[in-house]
Amino acid sequence: MTDLQLPTGFRAAALAAGIKPSGRTDLSTVVSDADCAWAFAGTRSTTAAACVTRNRDVYAQGGPVRALLVNAGNANAATGARGAADNADMADALGSVLNVPQDSVLTASTGIIGHLLPMDRVLSGIEHLPEDLGSGADLFAQAIMTTDTRPKTASVTLSTGARIVGTAKGSGMIHPDMATMFAFALTDAQVDQSALRAAFPAIVARTFNAVTVDGDTSTNDMAVVLANGLAGPVPLEEFLEALEGVMRNLARQIAADGEGATKLLTVRVSGARSEAEALNAARTCCVSPLLKSAVHGNDPNWGRVIMAVGRSGAAVNVEAMTVSVQGHAVFAGKPLSYDDATVSQSMKAEEVVFEINLGVGEAVGEAWGCDLSAEYVSINADYTT
Amino acid sequence: MTDLQLPTGFRAAALAAGIKPSGRTDLSTVVSDADCAWAFAGTRSTTAAACVTRNRDVYAQGGPVRALLVNAGNANAATGARGAADNADMADALGSVLNVPQDSVLTASTGIIGHLLPMDRVLSGIEHLPEDLGSGADLFAQAIMTTDTRPKTASVTLSTGARIVGTAKGSGMIHPDMATMFAFALTDAQVDQSALRAAFPAIVARTFNAVTVDGDTSTNDMAVVLANGLAGPVPLEEFLEALEGVMRNLARQIAADGEGATKLLTVRVSGARSEAEALNAARTCCVSPLLKSAVHGNDPNWGRVIMAVGRSGAAVNVEAMTVSVQGHAVFAGKPLSYDDATVSQSMKAEEVVFEINLGVGEAVGEAWGCDLSAEYVSINADYTT
Repeated sequence: MTDLQLPTGFRAAALAAGIKPSGRTDLSTVVSDADCAWAFAGTRSTTAAACVTRNRDVYAQGGPVRALLVNAGNANAATGARGAADNADMADALGSVLNVPQDSVLTASTGIIGHLLPMDRVLSGIEHLPEDLGSGADLFAQAIMTTDTRPKTASVTLSTGARIVGTAKGSGMIHPDMATMFAFALTDAQVDQSALRAAFPAIVARTFNAVTVDGDTSTNDMAVVLANGLAGPVPLEEFLEALEGVMRNLARQIAADGEGATKLLTVRVSGARSEAEALNAARTCCVSPLLKSAVHGNDPNWGRVIMAVGRSGAAVNVEAMTVSVQGHAVFAGKPLSYDDATVSQSMKAEEVVFEINLGVGEAVGEAWGCDLSAEYVSINADYTT
Repeated sequence: MTDLQLPTGFRAAALAAGIKPSGRTDLSTVVSDADCAWAFAGTRSTTAAACVTRNRDVYAQGGPVRALLVNAGNANAATGARGAADNADMADALGSVLNVPQDSVLTASTGIIGHLLPMDRVLSGIEHLPEDLGSGADLFAQAIMTTDTRPKTASVTLSTGARIVGTAKGSGMIHPDMATMFAFALTDAQVDQSALRAAFPAIVARTFNAVTVDGDTSTNDMAVVLANGLAGPVPLEEFLEALEGVMRNLARQIAADGEGATKLLTVRVSGARSEAEALNAARTCCVSPLLKSAVHGNDPNWGRVIMAVGRSGAAVNVEAMTVSVQGHAVFAGKPLSYDDATVSQSMKAEEVVFEINLGVGEAVGEAWGCDLSAEYVSINADYTT
């Protein structure tokens, strides 16, 4: 536990409602004393879960947010009309208990797809949630975990004294398309909502959308930032830069804690025609099971980088292209000679970095992933049975 | 060995040129006594290998083909100008030995990326290749293998007595984008070249482009059909249907022999808005490491099908959607109750079939993949070192 404190005016609570058979905490909330300006990004999946669909509707209405309600252990996705009604009932129940409008409560569910929530336990849990509201962030960060091996938090203090505290979860089914499976950034800074919403997509693209564990996009992915304004105004540029830093920090934590991961994989692309192509090329490297396996085996098989970049469709001039692994140049328009043993030894690290110049432009992009281990298979071959 | 005979007028030879350190056969050729009408599909990778680039140029010229030259053990990709020159030299050398035009020789290289070919051994091998030309297909099918555990052939005899014999290779880095890593279909049927070329892309889309082992698109993928006409004309429709059957057969063999695979995964999508969306949804299921892991563990975790379909971006009406596993209905707009143990038991088979109706249209599509095992990781963590 880090004893991380939430920003002014935010309180959180968590309890074990009995959604997870293990008896671990699985129901949690973050409540703000004041109305929050907010921004939201949800999965682009065409089979998005009830919570994503409803939050998107609430987002479009433009009203303020007062609380988040999160359950782990059950994604409430592909559960039909009954699942959608259950999701709305959860928000309504917390709104009633907290005495705030139902449309000021966002929901987020994570866990197995295709099972109805045990609503009796959930509603009973919601009744008791407000009893233990406190200012610590750690219990909340822990309660939203599924196969994560550790809670993920990041925080920063701005020049005005306002703070941003971020929490995230996610370990498998991580290949966000617009957001990742739960990233929540809370701040007491006062921020203009329309400026925040305008800037948010690009920040998500460079942070959570640049993470991949297995290429599988979840039905429940979402990133939310809530700003309750209690610490007063902050220069917009400073705030956005700090927010991106917190989100990048969380994104890297998600990659490093990928299912079965033993190391973080970082791919930096430069010389691209556009930022979108740079990000896409970097992320395609990070999702490649062949490159991920090579990283696991400390194998400097940079041919798989060439393959992944080619597969991404990014424009590239192979004659002008360069590739380095852990700072060792291995390709510059043609194969370079290097000492296999030295480069392999350098890959035995907590983080393995590939740097790639595509040789066609000036744009850059960075993505994060992890190695592929036999452990990933065993985690996922027996998840439900 | 199947003792499969090549169609009339085709002969093949293979030898161990010393490209593979193992001493296995690694250099092979198929020669036609008569000019061949032909069609070709090569990888869409932006880092395509020298052989793909040159074949594409030869294809655009529209002249006939007389021979294929294939080496295994070295992809000759990302090898710069020297690699391109080596590739052209190989074609020239075989053309000289066979006394056919250099532009009637196609090349195909497969193996590790980023290493120059040992040209002294390759050229010496080419000198000796024609000495052992024979009518058997098996030696050729074996010589083109890399991590494949078995050769892949398929054949059919048409109503006129003409035959189509297909061979393919590929086990990892299999997620073809326009073709797969080597599929060669040889026929003595007489076929109009422009009709063949017009029909080929759609056949490739429904066969080789519907296969995936790991989502990684190779730099060297290609599919070629050579028709030397020596058995006379065949009704076009009959020929194309038979060709698609041979290619589908080979595609399924590639999926079943995927690196580390213990079973074939077949996903049939119906009720889609278009064939492209049906194929994309089916293939996204087959590439999902989460679904592949579940199949490995005989886990009927159909929620991962919902996830993969959503990730594919295909239009879907979740309320009207249905999913079945090995014939057991598990989802119909909402979760259905079924016996876990029974469905799990039915997944202990050589082939696991998911059938999915998207509920929005009439189009269908089928794709093939394989389960994900710990063996895949160990095969690929130590490929070069």
